[in-house]
Amino acid sequence: MAFTPLHDRVLVRRLEGEEKTAGGLIIPDTAKEKPAEGIVVAVGEGARDDDGDRIPMDVKEGDKVLFGKWSGTEVTVDGTEMLIMKESDIMGIIA
Amino acid sequence: MAFTPLHDRVLVRRLEGEEKTAGGLIIPDTAKEKPAEGIVVAVGEGARDDDGDRIPMDVKEGDKVLFGKWSGTEVTVDGTEMLIMKESDIMGIIA
Amino acid sequence: MAFTPLHDRVLVRRLEGEEKTAGGLIIPDTAKEKPAEGIVVAVGEGARDDDGDRIPMDVKEGDKVLFGKWSGTEVTVDGTEMLIMKESDIMGIIA
Amino acid sequence: MAFTPLHDRVLVRRLEGEEKTAGGLIIPDTAKEKPAEGIVVAVGEGARDDDGDRIPMDVKEGDKVLFGKWSGTEVTVDGTEMLIMKESDIMGIIA
Amino acid sequence: MAFTPLHDRVLVRRLEGEEKTAGGLIIPDTAKEKPAEGIVVAVGEGARDDDGDRIPMDVKEGDKVLFGKWSGTEVTVDGTEMLIMKESDIMGIIA
Amino acid sequence: MAFTPLHDRVLVRRLEGEEKTAGGLIIPDTAKEKPAEGIVVAVGEGARDDDGDRIPMDVKEGDKVLFGKWSGTEVTVDGTEMLIMKESDIMGIIA
Amino acid sequence: MAFTPLHDRVLVRRLEGEEKTAGGLIIPDTAKEKPAEGIVVAVGEGARDDDGDRIPMDVKEGDKVLFGKWSGTEVTVDGTEMLIMKESDIMGIIA
Repeated sequence: MAFTPLHDRVLVRRLEGEEKTAGGLIIPDTAKEKPAEGIVVAVGEGARDDDGDRIPMDVKEGDKVLFGKWSGTEVTVDGTEMLIMKESDIMGIIA
Repeated sequence: MAFTPLHDRVLVRRLEGEEKTAGGLIIPDTAKEKPAEGIVVAVGEGARDDDGDRIPMDVKEGDKVLFGKWSGTEVTVDGTEMLIMKESDIMGIIA
Repeated sequence: MAFTPLHDRVLVRRLEGEEKTAGGLIIPDTAKEKPAEGIVVAVGEGARDDDGDRIPMDVKEGDKVLFGKWSGTEVTVDGTEMLIMKESDIMGIIA
Repeated sequence: MAFTPLHDRVLVRRLEGEEKTAGGLIIPDTAKEKPAEGIVVAVGEGARDDDGDRIPMDVKEGDKVLFGKWSGTEVTVDGTEMLIMKESDIMGIIA
Repeated sequence: MAFTPLHDRVLVRRLEGEEKTAGGLIIPDTAKEKPAEGIVVAVGEGARDDDGDRIPMDVKEGDKVLFGKWSGTEVTVDGTEMLIMKESDIMGIIA
Repeated sequence: MAFTPLHDRVLVRRLEGEEKTAGGLIIPDTAKEKPAEGIVVAVGEGARDDDGDRIPMDVKEGDKVLFGKWSGTEVTVDGTEMLIMKESDIMGIIA
Repeated sequence: MAFTPLHDRVLVRRLEGEEKTAGGLIIPDTAKEKPAEGIVVAVGEGARDDDGDRIPMDVKEGDKVLFGKWSGTEVTVDGTEMLIMKESDIMGIIA
């Protein structure tokens, strides 16, 4: 399968369940709009700045990321639930 | 027939039915606002940046694309339902 | 008669009735906000970019164009109903 | 009398009644928000672009212009009803 | 007294009553939101453009100006009612 | 105590009571949203323009300023009520 | 644990309770939307300006900062409540 997100979009595979990262980051269960974790599967070429030049993306394939739980549009790729979102919906990278 | 979309608009032929791509991408049927697939039929010359220069388009004729189901304006070309949308309504390219 | 639209405005003569173009483009009748066809009668000199330079217009006098049915402001020129609209209201050029 | 509009403002003397121009342009009477005709009496020096430079005005004193009927702010100059509006409220120049 | 308006702000002394200028400009009394006349008392150094450079002000101390009746914030300076407004609230200069 | 406002923020100590400045500027008591006077206690390094360069601040520590009565966020520093506001909330400098 | 905030985001550990800083800054308890104090734990690489260049961050790891009480999105890192917010939500640095 090959899906190339356009512009500054990112294809993310959501990690289900409350994961505890190696560093011990726990996503709280009670928060109203709690962030979700996922793995970046594909990354667009980047949006363009005011001069029409590409702005390089800050996430890359394989990055474990935190994003707003309701961010993105759902698609199913190879039987796995995926999300297409903008890079700006991603809050940070978990290492 | 020749229809030249203006600026950053794209003419897209919607693919009806739930297609399974070679790579196995399935568009879920239950999602409230599920994305749709289509083939790019014609592409505008691109919007202009702050200096008035053209921003090249990221999609080209023949690309299989994913877009928001309610995106675009419907027209009928040669008996086929078409959509005129902005490139920013296209989420990515399916290969 | 001479009417010179200002900035990025365009004077368009609406084509009444459902026309079938040489290429077979049919404007559907049932769509809620169906696009309309028209002929460009006069074109402004173009808006200005952030540096104050003119952005050249993408349509020219005589172009057959597709635009949102409710776009523009109506005026009557030489007994013909005309519309003054912004170029951004024009979706594309029919050839 | 001397009134110098600031920035991209224009002082316009409204032409009352339904005028038929030499070229036969008639402003329809039934339109809900029909455009009005007027003569440009005074023109500002122009707004400034992102670099702070003046953007030259596209209308000049004496131009016969078409503008939105409800555009501008009314003042009375030498017993004549005048309107101060932005150049962007002017749709085009009638010749 | 010395009050230095910041950025593109202007300190204006409102002229009460319906003045008839030398040129015969009369502010109509019946308009719902009629413009008011005033004298510019102090002028800021100007806002900054996108490059951070000052945009020079178009009004100067002593100018007789026309502005929206409800523009600005009222202060009392030396017993005289004053208004602090943005230069963009000023419609033009009366000479 | 040291509090460094970020970006284009300013720390202001509000002057309570109706002060009459040396120049005789009186803040009217009856105005609905009357401006307030204060002394600038600390100033940020400035916001950044479109090129990422700092825009120098127009107020400095010790300036007596006029600002909208409801501007800013309240904090208490050394027992004195302070306000953190953006420089754009400051209308001008009283000398 | 390693969490790298994206763009101009900052990871902040909230300081619970009403702290009195060395300099005596007290956050008032009665204010409706009182600011909160926290320690910066991680900082993004910065947003990009109009030319696509990074804008350096003004806060750094270890900074004691003041921010709007309701700013940011909550996550739990190593059992400590953390907040991911934009640098623009931070009002200033307490020293």
